[in-house]
Amino acid sequence: MIERIAILGTGLLGTSIGLALRSAGFGGSIVGWNRSSEGGREALAMRAVDSLAADALEAARDSQVVILCVPIYSTLDTMEQLSAILGPDHLVTDVGSTKAQITSAAGRLFNTPERAAFLPGHPMAGKERGGASLGDANLFRSAVWLFTDDPAWRRSPHSAELASNWRGWVQAMGSRVIDLEAARHDELVAWVSHLPQFTATALSALLEEQVGDAPELKHVGGRALREMTRLGASPFSMWRDIAHTNTAAIEAALQALEQRLAHIRENLRTPELREEFERANQFRRES
Amino acid sequence: MIERIAILGTGLLGTSIGLALRSAGFGGSIVGWNRSSEGGREALAMRAVDSLAADALEAARDSQVVILCVPIYSTLDTMEQLSAILGPDHLVTDVGSTKAQITSAAGRLFNTPERAAFLPGHPMAGKERGGASLGDANLFRSAVWLFTDDPAWRRSPHSAELASNWRGWVQAMGSRVIDLEAARHDELVAWVSHLPQFTATALSALLEEQVGDAPELKHVGGRALREMTRLGASPFSMWRDIAHTNTAAIEAALQALEQRLAHIRENLRTPELREEFERANQFRRES
Repeated sequence: MIERIAILGTGLLGTSIGLALRSAGFGGSIVGWNRSSEGGREALAMRAVDSLAADALEAARDSQVVILCVPIYSTLDTMEQLSAILGPDHLVTDVGSTKAQITSAAGRLFNTPERAAFLPGHPMAGKERGGASLGDANLFRSAVWLFTDDPAWRRSPHSAELASNWRGWVQAMGSRVIDLEAARHDELVAWVSHLPQFTATALSALLEEQVGDAPELKHVGGRALREMTRLGASPFSMWRDIAHTNTAAIEAALQALEQRLAHIRENLRTPELREEFERANQFRRES
Repeated sequence: MIERIAILGTGLLGTSIGLALRSAGFGGSIVGWNRSSEGGREALAMRAVDSLAADALEAARDSQVVILCVPIYSTLDTMEQLSAILGPDHLVTDVGSTKAQITSAAGRLFNTPERAAFLPGHPMAGKERGGASLGDANLFRSAVWLFTDDPAWRRSPHSAELASNWRGWVQAMGSRVIDLEAARHDELVAWVSHLPQFTATALSALLEEQVGDAPELKHVGGRALREMTRLGASPFSMWRDIAHTNTAAIEAALQALEQRLAHIRENLRTPELREEFERANQFRRES
């Protein structure tokens, strides 16, 4: 069914999707486009894409399925451009980490019988560093891939079928699909994804100030410290768009953690500390 | 030189030390004692110890080197008892996570020419769950093993030699030895070990309240969330003694992180967020 795919943005996620599709047996063509030609050439050399396009919009027009793998604001910009040139035989999907603004734009710009379909997606997979060279055919294996489709949308039969087929390829790449309402998505990921990231950033920045001048002492922390600060390496360029498009939910999550840390601080010598450990133990037991 | 070792407490660390000593070629005898006989039998079955003692003090008296692998307050209690029955032919060492109180007790109860030597130690290795069954001969490989010896101590020549030999076995188990002053040790581990633990506990307890009723949504967080909450499984029984014996330093570290999180929360849409990410990136570059 799907024979021509365009991946716009061949960073870590775009390159991994190309590799994972091949690994799952996708036999059609995959054209790549990347803002910097170096990242595109890397993805091509890794065979994540068959060819490179000079023009993102032309590559999209010549494909059936267009996967946007660029930061959130670039995704929003590209959606405006694509909605003007694609039609009911096209499906566009994305991998953005916040979904309220993208899903709202999808309702405004796509998803009528006369227009292309847009299926807002978010694979919960990544690495603390980006780039095509880290692309990994197994990145999505055992991960959750969230969609924030709106049941009110009326798609052309053809593009609805493409959307259904794309869900099949997501599962073939090893992911479990969960459908969520966009606002609920953004609230949930504020807790389980954005809060852990900003906590690791805060902890890493704090420790850089406290022990950054004594590199030999950093190793003292061992595996526990390495894990708790691994996400400290995450690039600002990606997280800026997340912070800007999910601000209120992230603020609420950060404030809740500040209060929780203060609660522990005030109870280091009271029986309440035991209860905090038991709640934490409970979370891990179910994980 | 060292031919008879007693390991008092055959939990994760005690059992791992027995296994690591054997793996490093220690050919002498290792006697184990454990508060619960089940943990002792497990360590014996794993050959971490050659035999089990019914009485911890007798086992200590019959050995040259005594390794205390029990919680901090038990270590302090046992030090009182051992100082009365051991002499200048003995060395006692420990694995406690805070060192100010233990090092102070070591100066008061040991380390004169007429008494046993006490070498306060702290291997920076562990797992989020305890118990003999998780014992691991490679636990100390590539870890840092901290000592908080006091240069003012005057030991018998024999026990000083035992202490020097024990340092050799620690290195033979694969650890890098670092010597620190006890107060500096407790301040340092508040930042690189205790703060990460209490942060993971706070994050896990908070998420248990927020998403604990929707287990399927926990998996959405993926590897990042699993790593950031792994230490949430740590047992209160061990951390209570740490919270009680390093309270001020932990309070200071927690408060600093609260302020850092508030700073990020207030700057989600300002250029200062970039600077926090760059500080965090810097910490990871040097790690």
